[in-house]
Order: sequence, then C-alpha cells, then structure tokens
Amino acid sequence: MPHHLRSAFFVSDRTGITAESLGHTLLTQFDTVEFKRETIPFVDTVEKAEALAEVIRQVSETDHLKPLVFTSIINPDVRSALQVENAVMIDFFDTFIGQLEQEIGQRASLSVGKAHGMVNEEKYDHRIEAVNFSLNHDDGVKLKDLHEADVILVGVSRSGKTPTCLYLALQYGIRAANYPLTPEDLGSPTLPKLLLPFKDKIFGLTIDPARLHHIRSERRPDSKYASMDNCRREVNEAESMFRHHGVPFISTTHKSIEEIASTIMHKAALGRRF
Amino acid sequence: MPHHLRSAFFVSDRTGITAESLGHTLLTQFDTVEFKRETIPFVDTVEKAEALAEVIRQVSETDHLKPLVFTSIINPDVRSALQVENAVMIDFFDTFIGQLEQEIGQRASLSVGKAHGMVNEEKYDHRIEAVNFSLNHDDGVKLKDLHEADVILVGVSRSGKTPTCLYLALQYGIRAANYPLTPEDLGSPTLPKLLLPFKDKIFGLTIDPARLHHIRSERRPDSKYASMDNCRREVNEAESMFRHHGVPFISTTHKSIEEIASTIMHKAALGRRF
Repeated sequence: MPHHLRSAFFVSDRTGITAESLGHTLLTQFDTVEFKRETIPFVDTVEKAEALAEVIRQVSETDHLKPLVFTSIINPDVRSALQVENAVMIDFFDTFIGQLEQEIGQRASLSVGKAHGMVNEEKYDHRIEAVNFSLNHDDGVKLKDLHEADVILVGVSRSGKTPTCLYLALQYGIRAANYPLTPEDLGSPTLPKLLLPFKDKIFGLTIDPARLHHIRSERRPDSKYASMDNCRREVNEAESMFRHHGVPFISTTHKSIEEIASTIMHKAALGRRF
Repeated sequence: MPHHLRSAFFVSDRTGITAESLGHTLLTQFDTVEFKRETIPFVDTVEKAEALAEVIRQVSETDHLKPLVFTSIINPDVRSALQVENAVMIDFFDTFIGQLEQEIGQRASLSVGKAHGMVNEEKYDHRIEAVNFSLNHDDGVKLKDLHEADVILVGVSRSGKTPTCLYLALQYGIRAANYPLTPEDLGSPTLPKLLLPFKDKIFGLTIDPARLHHIRSERRPDSKYASMDNCRREVNEAESMFRHHGVPFISTTHKSIEEIASTIMHKAALGRRF
C-alpha cells in the first residue's frame, strides 16, 4: 500500500487567517507527520459549503485517511452543510460559543465578518494612515513628525526595524517610526540629538553580531559594512547607548517578526489602535 | 450595584496573536456587551502563569463577573498553573489536541513556538526579502525585476495597493509589486506596455468612486485629482482595461486588508511562501 499524506483543510467564512493559524499551531505538534494543507476562505453560503464537502469526501476516499477539517464558520446552516462523515471536524467556533452564551447570558448574534471585516471606514483609514506613517518614517528619512509616532525603533542597519514597523502598523494600527544608528551616531554614547526629545518613545533593537554579519554579507559581500569586526563594534556601541539612556531593547536574533512586534507592544505597554 | 464590564484575557505562551484573533471573533458575537480586553503574550513559565492567575483571581473579585480567559498555552504545567476557579477558561489548544492525537495515532510533542517562532533562518530571510521586494517595487518605482514578482497589483492611486502588498509580503511571504495607473496610462484601454509581458501575474484593484473621492479629498482637498468626476472616470477606465485583458480584479471598498489579501491569494492560486 502506498504512503499517503494526511490532508488538512482550513475553512473559513472570511479570510481563513485565524483558522489557518490555530490549525497550524495544532499540527506543528505532530512533527513527524507530513500534511497536505489547503486554506479555503470565504465559504459563506450553503452552496459553497456543499461543494467543498464533496471535495473533502473525495479526498477522504483517495487518501484512505480521514482529512482534518479546521473551521471557524459562524453561520449554523453553512456549518452543517460542511459536515463530512469521513473527516475529523475541528470546530473553533461552535465548540466554544455555547459555553460563552451560557456564561454571558445572551445568544450569539451569529453575524459574520466582524473580526477581520471592515467594520467601519474610520478604523480602516486609521490603519492605512499608520502604514503610510511607517513608510514615510522608515530609515529616518523624515524626522519632523516624530511627535506623532507611537513608538520609534532605533538600531543599527539590518537589525529588523523596517519589517517590525510595518507589522506594527498593519497588525496593531501603531504609528511606528524607525531610525538607523549610523557609524557617525555610534561614535558617542548618547542618543542622536534629534531623538532626545522623544526618548520615552524609543525602543531599541539589537541583534547577534554573527547573524548581522551574515545578513549584511548577503547585501554587500566582503565590505567593511558587513565585516564581523564592524558588526561586533556597532552592536556593542548601540547596546551601550541604550543602557546609557535606560532605553528598553530586545534582541531580534531568534525571533519572528510577530514575536518582535508583540514583545514591543507588551513591554512598551502599547494598545491596539483599531 | 454599579455596572461592571466583563474582563477578557487573551493568554499565550508566544505572541498571543492567534488567541486574541479567535477570542475576538467569539466576543464580537455578543455585540451589546462591552469587554475589557487584555492580551498577555509570552506566558511560558509556571511562575509567570501563577502570577497571572493571581491577577485574574483579583479581577474576578472586583468585577463580580467571571473573567473570560482565552488561552492557547501548549505546556501542560504552565496551563495548569493558570487555572482560576472563578474564571471561564476557553482553551484553544487543550480542547482539540487529544482528538488529534487519537486520530493521528501519535502523541503531541508539546513543543512551544513552532507556529510564529523563527523556525529557521532561511524562511525568515525569505520573508524579509519579500518585504524588501514589496518596498522596492511600491508605486511602480522599480520595474526591472518584475519577473521576480509573484503578483503585480495594478490600480488607480489610493485603491489600496501598498498596504495589500506589504500584508502579502509579511503574512504570506509573497513578492508583491504594485503599479499605479496614472491618467496617462488610462487614456488607452490597453495595459501599459511595461506590464504586458507580465500579464499573467497581474491582479487588479478597483474601488467605489465615492469612497475614492473621500480618500483622495483627505490628501488633496478640492483638487482635480480628488474630484468626484475624475475619480469616476479613472475607476471606469481602469475597470475597462482589466476587462479588455481578462485581468482578474476585486473591489477593495468594503474589505479589510486581510480580506483583500486573502482573496488575492485564493483567486490567484498563490501559496504561502514560508
């Protein structure tokens, strides 16, 4: 008998991001199993659910293994239409909503699309403005509106400032500026003058010198910029500067963008802005 | 007796993004209830969990309402330390892992940090490269490496191209370029010559002219650029162009960035790249 992969479907009536993300967390617990993963967003009618149920039914026959179906569908009719006998249904919505209804003493409104949906234009606009702010204040290009920033990330070149700022803007609606510490800035143990008025908003990023050397070498091989010696010195001087001013800082070395961003949100006591 | 808000905690051993997102979906079903929401990431030791349990215990006393605690903690010891008698525990991990263990016929490895953690540097680098690619190919500034793009978003100014590209890069590791259709491009019903070789990678964004008028008026009030007439004409011409070439397109008007991005992933049959 041939080796069969296990199929996993992430099904949602909206974007599928939540179902996929939690399903993924659960599946990574089985590290020796390989899964065929498929995300199906916007399953928001009985017809779409029936069509998908038929696909899953066929997969369960060809796989000779029950497919895993992770869903977060809110509408009960759509959810019922998705039931497949020969599949393992993991329902992230239905499993908990009854318990919450009972505790809160209210029926769920069963309306779709409030979480990732565009609830109101004002919130959407705010988020887009945060993205534009972060783009306009990337790499210290524009310093005049720094008083409007929620946070200013400071660190040496290639320490992870730009993707973190963009993630903070997109995920949390945070206006995140960033300022790269250049070799000239690093000559002195004090923060660049321009940044001093905003000291309380500054969050430092640091990185393991060897990792920095690797990243910079991809961009400019064999340069002074990328050399191990230079990376070590820049990182040391940046960290001394953070300590000198009591600026909080974290290392980005073994962290994903999500981890860096949520650590900053937590440590800087920032709240979601949309 | 005074009016008490219900407290909701989103607790995770990592970033808290998944617990917060699913908890949020569940809570939005109770639209007349106001919640005091707090996200606590990185609860990854028994000590941290015990300290948090004490906070929740106190909140349950002052609130006179059981706090809702949404968790996705993987380590069983940490999870036990978080148990609070007078709280409603909604466990996104423990509730399902047993069922999966049984179906898959294997014990969960119970290792933390594989989902949003930096599993390997290569994948991290790929994601950062996608962000840099999107930044470098924003607003048609650089057209020479378009053959490296996974997708090219095309639309009139302010139709939502930039935030969508950045989200595609950050969330899915997709190299997303974008090209703004200028009034010059829109004079003719054919795609700009530069884009023709990449027709199969193009995805169009359109927007309701009234909404576009509103967005543009914030930037340049009373300009020809923002006028209702001009917005209507640009949108019509862009849509004609998409139809002329059979380019798929969606309206961004009532959609969040997540919805726009996941629709493109789905319709353009793109797969996550990390």
